[in-house]
This record gives sequence, C-alpha cells and structure tokens, in this order.
Amino acid sequence: MKRIEIYDTTLRDGAQGEGVSFSGPGKIKVARLLDEFGVDYIEGGYAASNPKDMEFFHELARHPLQHARVAAFGSTRRANIQASADGNLQALIQARTSVVTIFGKSWQLHVRDVLKTTDEENVQMIGDSVRFLKEQGKEVVYDAEHFFDGYKDNPAYAVSTLIAANEAGADRIVLCDTNGGTMYYELADITEELVRRFGGKVGIHPHNDSELGVANAMAAIRAGAMHVQGTINGFGERCGNANLCSIIPNLAEKMGYEVLRPGSLKKLKSVAQFVYEMANVRPNPKMPYVGQSAFAHKAGMHVDGVQKNPRSFEHVDPASVGNERRVLISELSGTSNIFLKAVEMGLQLDKKSPEVKAILSELELLEKQGYEFEAAEASFKLLIQKVLKAHKPFVTLEGFRAIVEKRSKDEACISEATVKVLVHGEQVHTVGEGDGPVDALNAALRKALETFYPAIKDVNLVDYHVRILDPEEATAAKTRVLIESTDGHDSWGTVGVSENIIEASWEALVDSVEYKLFLDEQKKNAS
Amino acid sequence: MKRIEIYDTTLRDGAQGEGVSFSGPGKIKVARLLDEFGVDYIEGGYAASNPKDMEFFHELARHPLQHARVAAFGSTRRANIQASADGNLQALIQARTSVVTIFGKSWQLHVRDVLKTTDEENVQMIGDSVRFLKEQGKEVVYDAEHFFDGYKDNPAYAVSTLIAANEAGADRIVLCDTNGGTMYYELADITEELVRRFGGKVGIHPHNDSELGVANAMAAIRAGAMHVQGTINGFGERCGNANLCSIIPNLAEKMGYEVLRPGSLKKLKSVAQFVYEMANVRPNPKMPYVGQSAFAHKAGMHVDGVQKNPRSFEHVDPASVGNERRVLISELSGTSNIFLKAVEMGLQLDKKSPEVKAILSELELLEKQGYEFEAAEASFKLLIQKVLKAHKPFVTLEGFRAIVEKRSKDEACISEATVKVLVHGEQVHTVGEGDGPVDALNAALRKALETFYPAIKDVNLVDYHVRILDPEEATAAKTRVLIESTDGHDSWGTVGVSENIIEASWEALVDSVEYKLFLDEQKKNAS
Repeated sequence: MKRIEIYDTTLRDGAQGEGVSFSGPGKIKVARLLDEFGVDYIEGGYAASNPKDMEFFHELARHPLQHARVAAFGSTRRANIQASADGNLQALIQARTSVVTIFGKSWQLHVRDVLKTTDEENVQMIGDSVRFLKEQGKEVVYDAEHFFDGYKDNPAYAVSTLIAANEAGADRIVLCDTNGGTMYYELADITEELVRRFGGKVGIHPHNDSELGVANAMAAIRAGAMHVQGTINGFGERCGNANLCSIIPNLAEKMGYEVLRPGSLKKLKSVAQFVYEMANVRPNPKMPYVGQSAFAHKAGMHVDGVQKNPRSFEHVDPASVGNERRVLISELSGTSNIFLKAVEMGLQLDKKSPEVKAILSELELLEKQGYEFEAAEASFKLLIQKVLKAHKPFVTLEGFRAIVEKRSKDEACISEATVKVLVHGEQVHTVGEGDGPVDALNAALRKALETFYPAIKDVNLVDYHVRILDPEEATAAKTRVLIESTDGHDSWGTVGVSENIIEASWEALVDSVEYKLFLDEQKKNAS
Repeated sequence: MKRIEIYDTTLRDGAQGEGVSFSGPGKIKVARLLDEFGVDYIEGGYAASNPKDMEFFHELARHPLQHARVAAFGSTRRANIQASADGNLQALIQARTSVVTIFGKSWQLHVRDVLKTTDEENVQMIGDSVRFLKEQGKEVVYDAEHFFDGYKDNPAYAVSTLIAANEAGADRIVLCDTNGGTMYYELADITEELVRRFGGKVGIHPHNDSELGVANAMAAIRAGAMHVQGTINGFGERCGNANLCSIIPNLAEKMGYEVLRPGSLKKLKSVAQFVYEMANVRPNPKMPYVGQSAFAHKAGMHVDGVQKNPRSFEHVDPASVGNERRVLISELSGTSNIFLKAVEMGLQLDKKSPEVKAILSELELLEKQGYEFEAAEASFKLLIQKVLKAHKPFVTLEGFRAIVEKRSKDEACISEATVKVLVHGEQVHTVGEGDGPVDALNAALRKALETFYPAIKDVNLVDYHVRILDPEEATAAKTRVLIESTDGHDSWGTVGVSENIIEASWEALVDSVEYKLFLDEQKKNAS
C-alpha cells in the first residue's frame, strides 16, 4: 500500500483564516495532538515575523515530538542579496527545526508585479536559498507558489523555477494552487507531467476557492504526488486550504492509501473538534465525516432506511471516523455512551434499566439548554450520581455576590465576591478578591472550603473557556463556561450554562470542587 | 457554447438540511428570485406529504414564473398497485406543475432491504410510473436514487432500471449519488457510459459527504451530462447537496458553458444571501465565491500583492459574482493593510508617512495585549482617529459598577449596573438591569446617552463573542470581547480586552456607541 505524506499547515496557513486565532500554549497542544494522530509534518508558523511562532519552535526543540517533523516557514532570500545575509533565512535557521519550508515564485506576473525583480534573479533566489538551507543540514520543502497559474501562463518559465529548487537539493517540490482557481482536471494533467520529471518528491498544496480543494488534492495524488498539504477543518485564508478532515478519510477509506498511524482514523472527529476549540471557531456542522450533521438523518424515509440497513444512507460507518449517527427525532442515540460511562464509574447498570432512561432524559434536557459534556466529564459523572440519588453534596450554595467596580478612568477595576455556603450543616460566609469577578468568586469559595476540606488547596484551575451559544442574542445570550481543574494527579473538566456568565462560571466552579471531593472519597473507599 | 440546465432543489432537498426552514411565503419569494436569476427548473417540494408544498405549487400555477419550470417531487408507485390508483402519483398530478420529478431505486440493497419487493417489480414500478405521468402530459424527470452505489454493486440491474424509465418516455435521466460517497473519477467513468447509451438527456444529482459535491457535478458534465441538480449554498441532508453557488461560476467562468440568463452571474452573492435569510441559516463566511471571507486578505504579503495586481491573489474578479474584496487587520498585516483601510475611510495618508508608522506601532502594541481588529473595524477606525488626534470623544467614562447577586439557591440571579459618564461636560449617573452584568451595563449606558444622542436608540447589539486569550491562566486569564452592533443601516464590530471580562465588555460597548456617533457626524459632514 502506497503511503501518502500528510503535511499539516493548520498552525501557519490555517491561522491566516478569518476568525482563526491560536494562543501560544494552544499551538503547542494542537501540535502534540497532531503528532499523536500520525501527521508526518507540522508547519508551525513564520520564523521571521513573529516571536510567538519562534517560541513555538523552541519549545518543540526542547521537548520534541514523537513522529511528526516540525517545519518552519518562510520565503526565499530577497532580491540582490547573499542568502547567508538574508534575515528571513537566518530566522529559519534559528528556529532549530529539522525541516524548513520556503516558498518561491513560479508565475511571472508575481515576479514582475509583486517582487519587482527579473525572471533570472527570481530563479537565482530559489536555487541560492535552497542550497543555503541544505548546507545547514535542513530537510527542505520547496513550495512553488501559484505554480498552476504560472504554468498556464508560461510553462517553460514555471518549470525552470522547479528545476532550480531541485538541482539545489530540495527534498520535496510542492505545487501550490495558491489562489484556488485551478480545475481538478487541469491540475491533474500538469501534476502528471511534473511527476514524470521530478519523480517521487512531488507534493500538492491546494486551496478551496472553487470548492475543489479536496478534489484537487486527490487529483494530484492520482497523478503521482506523494505529499499533500492541508489544514484541519479546512482553515485558511479566504475560503480555506484543502481540508485534511476530508482528504484523509478519502485517501484511506476510498482510495486505499496508507496515511497516519494505524488505527488513527477513528480519532478524526475528536481532532477536528479539539482544533475548533483551540482556534475558538464555531464548528461547521455540515463538515463531511466530522460534522455534527454528517450522519444526521432527518425524519421520514431516510431514518426508516438507515434503521433497516445503515448502508442504505451512509457512505461509511460513522464510527470509522469517530463520529456517530444521529436520528434527529429519536431519543435513543446516546444510550450506549451513557452505559459505557456508567461502567467506567464502576456502576452496574442495565442498558434498558429505568435508571439509564432517567439519565438519558435528564441529559437531553440539559443539552437542549446548551450544556455539553464532551469536555466536562466530571460534571457528567456528578450528573449520573445526582440522578441516581447517590450524590450527597459536599457544599450547598446559599448565595453569592460579585461586584466589579471602576471608580475613575485612571483607576484599575476592582473585583470582589462574597459567597455564603453550607458545609457540614454550618453556614460559612467569606469574601475574596481577584482579577475579575470569576477569579474573585473562586477565591471566596476556596476560603469557605479549605478549613473543612484541606485537599481543596491542591486544586488549581488550568483552563477556562467561554462560549456564547446564541451570539445573535448579544449581551442577553446564553453562555457556556468550561473549566479544567487539576490536583497535580488527576485533571477534570466541568461545565456551567446560564444567560449570566457569572452564574455559569459559578456552576462550573462548584462542580470542580465537588468532583475533587467525590474523587477523594472514591479513592478512600477503594483503598 | 453548450448550455447546461440548472435544476434547483433548494426548496425540496435543501429543506431537509438540519436547521433549514422556509416559511410558505418565503418559498414563493425564493422561487421568484431563482426564476429571475435564470435557473431552468425549480423543485418546490413533495406533492404528497405536505399541504404547504401543495399550496406553493398552486400559487405558482396561478401566477406563473417567467423562465423556470416548476417541478413537483415524489416517488414511483408503490409495489403491487396500479399507477393510476397510487395516491402519491395522484398528488403529483394535482400539483398542476408542468414538470414532475420522481425517484426510483437502482440499488438492489434498497429494493430488497428498504422497499422489500422483488427486482422485477421494482423495474415495473419505474416504467409504469413514468408512463402514467407521460400520459398525463407531464415533462418527467427521472431521479435514479443511489445510482452509483447500485451500479458498482450490480451494473446490469442498475442500468435495467434506467432502460425502463427511458422506454417509458422519461425526458431526463438523472444519476443520483444519494449518499455522497462516490469518487469523482468513478462517477466520471460511469456517467460517460450512460451518456453513450442515453445521449443528451442525462443529468447528475451529487451530495457532498466526501466533500466532492462540486467536483462530481463537474465530472459528470465533462462526461456529457447536460443537466445538474443542486442547491443554493449547498443546503441539504447531512453534509448537503452539491453547491450551485460554486458549480454555476465554475461552469460559466472556468469551463466555458452557458448557464442562467446573460449577466446573471453577478447576482450570485445576493441570491446566496437572500436564501440564507429566508432559510434562517447563519451564512458560512468561507463559502467559495459568495462568502464574506471569499475575497478577504489577511496576510501582509497577500494584501501587498493584491494592491499591486488583484490577479496575484484572486482567481476571479470578486465583482463578477457580486462579491467584494476585503482587507483584514491582524497581527499578520503590514503597512499596506493600514494604508488601504485609511483610503477606505477617505483619509489621504502616505504609505511612508510618520502617521502610518505611528498607527502601525500602536496597533502592534495593542495586538500584543490581545486586541484583534479583524472583526472590529469600527474600533480600528476609532484607533486611527485617536492616533491622528482627530477624534473628540462623545462620552467620557468616570466610573461604573456591576453587581451580580444570587440571594438564595432558588432565587434567580440579579444583575444591576451603574455608570457615571461625562457628556458635553455634564456628569450623568444612571442605573440599569439585565440578564447578566454586561447586559445591565449596556442598559445603564444607553440610559445615560439617549437624552443627548437620540440616535443611540436605533443601535442594537446583534453579536457578542468572548475569547479567553490565555485559558491556562484560568479565571485570571485575559479576555477579549467582540461586539457587533447595527443601526438597521450599517453594522460595525468593536473590541475590548482586559483580565476582567466586565471591563473588556465595557470597552467594546463604549466603542460601539462612539462609532455610531462618529458615523452619523461623518454622514452629516458629507451631505
């Protein structure tokens, strides 16, 4: 089985998409997940333009990935300068990655109108830059920007730029459809010719401006390319890069190529979701394979058909990509998940028991209100305990108040919170301050509990996410808050939902400490 | 130039998409717009199942369209019954449309597992139904459901179902990739064979489950099909039908076919937007050709390139499909973006002037603090004004206080806010309530301003986004708030950043009203 190299540029080209923004630590998390997923290359950013990107490369140099090679991205040297004196190429070396990807121009329109240099100097720039990087011991991926536009304009010149890169020792020659305007059949013919010339080092980098990003990737691979560049969820400038979340399963399930690590495909949906979350982009439910609607059947003939034989209306098994069938009117979809979760918690539940039904209907109610338990398993486990009436709360809320005040234009904001709670039948009333109202509430809550439960001192909040569920309701919108906590040993996620962001945060905070105490009690009982 | 028939099924297959819902009058409006646009067929719904759909057909029979033919949709007769006695076929006649589209089965798996009838009876059902409808004087479009799956399973049987439809007089034979799982190259080969057999009456109906809906439509047309079925915006079950908003410009601009009416293509974006509006679906900004981001440039190099020559980063002229170029302001941007934005604002700035440099360095500083102006152009424009010292604030903050209180477990949260501001040198102190602290602040701010600036009453907040910038700082993390406002005429985005979510929201709120007042003043000065 022929292996196709997957080159992920979510963190570079993907980050250029409108509305996509990764934090520094978020980029590291995405890179580690993609590594585990089995991607072959991870392009992390521009070495030259951005200290955040440089820090990313250095962090991965200190704690390397397992499988994937990290690539720093930049351009060829500028015109009329020595490669060794070019700041951009210097920055690429300083990134300390094993792979460097540089792009150069194949289209005379760009050479003349954008670079404003001569055709000859452009070819020199490409050769010099690749040679310089090879001399520094780098694996060099050469991205031929606008290759197809250039080729259609002047094939001899476009090919001459590739020859320069190839003769200077480029390890991969990647044909880019930078503007996304090339039709798959033109792209196939051109790629076939280049594969004949350069053999097994040709790659493809398509964009989606004609809604052909995925087809163009496949057409190039059928023409002999062995390397494909794209992004998770099709993030990227304008209409996005070619979507790896469709390319990967098409290659693996439909075309019989080897990609990623064995068994990775069933992580596809969770990888897609995680990347959406880290980029703070609202997931597109209609995404092939990984979208929430991808296997959703709306009433009538389709539901009937799927029940009689799933193949009747599903082109692949949803589980093969980590997704699941949804029957939009039925309530039976989640039984097995709940059942599995209960087993995980050591509960003996029958799949058809009234308890499972009760949990399911509570779950449905909460999901309608906007709760989501995928990143909040701790809240979900507490929910099961509550429905089974097995949960005795460690702390009961009496009331809270949060105040944010700015007394004058030049004074800092002050946040103060008070909480009144019942612990062991005793009323405790505390006050805390913080960087914002939720931070202050957290401080007050800890003060109230630490005397009774010293273990709370070990709990740190390590992640805090806010999602506005119906942004069109503006400031009256429902808000979902996700908090991740750790005690150094275990980590757990909790969730809260309310029109009031403070109340939603409070819910997630209370679940966080409740779960810690529940966890400790379980461990005590087990030992 | 060969003409390709466009068959629109937005109002039938498109309406089966999750979240898509048209009102009765909305459907009529969409049909009239599509007619003006130059679509050849409009499939309006199921004649049998839905009185709303029947009313749609009758309304269009009373007030006919100019160009498009209206099609009523249904299935072949049931098994073991006379065509003339079948309720579904009767309903199709009663719809009084000139065209009737019926679907039948080509895949034995469906015949046996879903219809639960014999292979022979299925073929009979197809022939009888088409013949019956032809006898009633209808133009008959025959949709061969799951044709490609059926063909791959048993080509002889699949083709025999088409022969039955053809011999009974079907006017169009449409090959459906109902599950959307067929690769474009398989689909091309199979279509080519069927075109050889049935000549110029073959059509194609693809779905997007492998992200190949558009490519599959194009592959079939290249193989000789002359009729393509799809939906505006790619609405439809699961991942949607093939997207006409990409197919149409690809056919017209890239492949040289004749479609629609002359000059229609530049209405494409407004048609897409209108259909989103009528279906009550949030537009996908990344849609090729028609999306808000389709011609948006973020990276500095791209912006620079587009300025030098639009073709450098645009595969078609945005105006050719009724869209427009947008320049985004972000950390990846350089001098050119700012320069263009200033030009857009009517400012005369030199690219190398100290003013542009001052704006750039202020921008960099703010971006380091977590500001992002991509979705907050109004804040960016105010920023330019402030740096140029051209801005006199309409309102000055003295102080604010927001209180969120929950007095007992069973009581709802109460949010109250007070603001103290200076307007025209006068101190104003107001109080407001709301669903949360930000909603309450908004209420108080409006109360303070409305007496001085009645135009503020027209401003509504339509979108509110919260992004935690460094989630690992948990509740002490920096928060970015984006608010979108509208006065019914214009819409604008504003941004605020702080460790305190309330303060960040306040900043964005103040910018929102400042910008409205700035805009009104500009308009006044212009007139």
